[in-house]
Amino acid sequence: MTSGQGTDCAFCDIVAGTAESSVVYQDDLVLAFLDILPFTPGHLLVVPREHAPGLADLDEELGAHLFRTAHRIARGLRAGPLPCEGVNLLLADGAVAFQEVFHVHLHVIPRTVRDGVRLHANRRQPHRATLDLMAGRIRDALTAEHGESRA
Amino acid sequence: MTSGQGTDCAFCDIVAGTAESSVVYQDDLVLAFLDILPFTPGHLLVVPREHAPGLADLDEELGAHLFRTAHRIARGLRAGPLPCEGVNLLLADGAVAFQEVFHVHLHVIPRTVRDGVRLHANRRQPHRATLDLMAGRIRDALTAEHGESRA
Ligand SMILES: [Zn+2]
Ligand SMILES: [Zn+2]
Repeated sequence: MTSGQGTDCAFCDIVAGTAESSVVYQDDLVLAFLDILPFTPGHLLVVPREHAPGLADLDEELGAHLFRTAHRIARGLRAGPLPCEGVNLLLADGAVAFQEVFHVHLHVIPRTVRDGVRLHANRRQPHRATLDLMAGRIRDALTAEHGESRA
Repeated sequence: MTSGQGTDCAFCDIVAGTAESSVVYQDDLVLAFLDILPFTPGHLLVVPREHAPGLADLDEELGAHLFRTAHRIARGLRAGPLPCEGVNLLLADGAVAFQEVFHVHLHVIPRTVRDGVRLHANRRQPHRATLDLMAGRIRDALTAEHGESRA
């Protein structure tokens, strides 16, 4: 913990050690610490040390390591001493997707029955033709983005 | 699309081509296709070709590639033609965590304002001492799992 000026990013402050956090894991690329407003006990966040507001700004291999770390922690939670009958990994990219801090973070949320976490959506089954049309449009967008078709 | 016997796993059937799907991306390791009961239009799933019921059974590098693929698709969706102002990546590991098909899958969910997706939890701010104690217990579990301490 060093003293000094804070940045305007709460997670950069945690990475820099100028804001306190309860760290669970760290390496050269990522840091994992407990969420201060947890969905459930043990809810934690894995963040890249390097600031990136969203997925569009995040290096692909750094993203892969973020997930690798969350995966390891999830396995540790399932095998560990805290109540944990399941795990949600959740990434919110954009304010409409529930992102609150604009430094990429992957939530690792230990789950138990009746823990009060609920997810609601109006799920409706489209016709296959609608899905196929939509898949075609997404494939085109991916091709435009990456210059190759893989589907 | 080949005809033949189905397995007892809906996603293995899709990977094998014995069940229909609207594919968005595929490579040697993973397949991405539209969810047939979408939260929002364009909601898709990235699955490993190899069957793994949950995170405990999933190879770590395969998991990293699952995320890498979802990351690329999320960027394509944000840049693409479908309405998409944000994206949620969600992995449900275990029935209590909303897992419905027991073949690992990473949801990629395009989000827009007023799309009807809601997430609810009873968030309460614990004392720092409680968080520190919990972080210590999780670190111990990770050390026991991986034989080294990194925090
Ligand atoms: Zn930051
Ligand atoms: Zn399967």
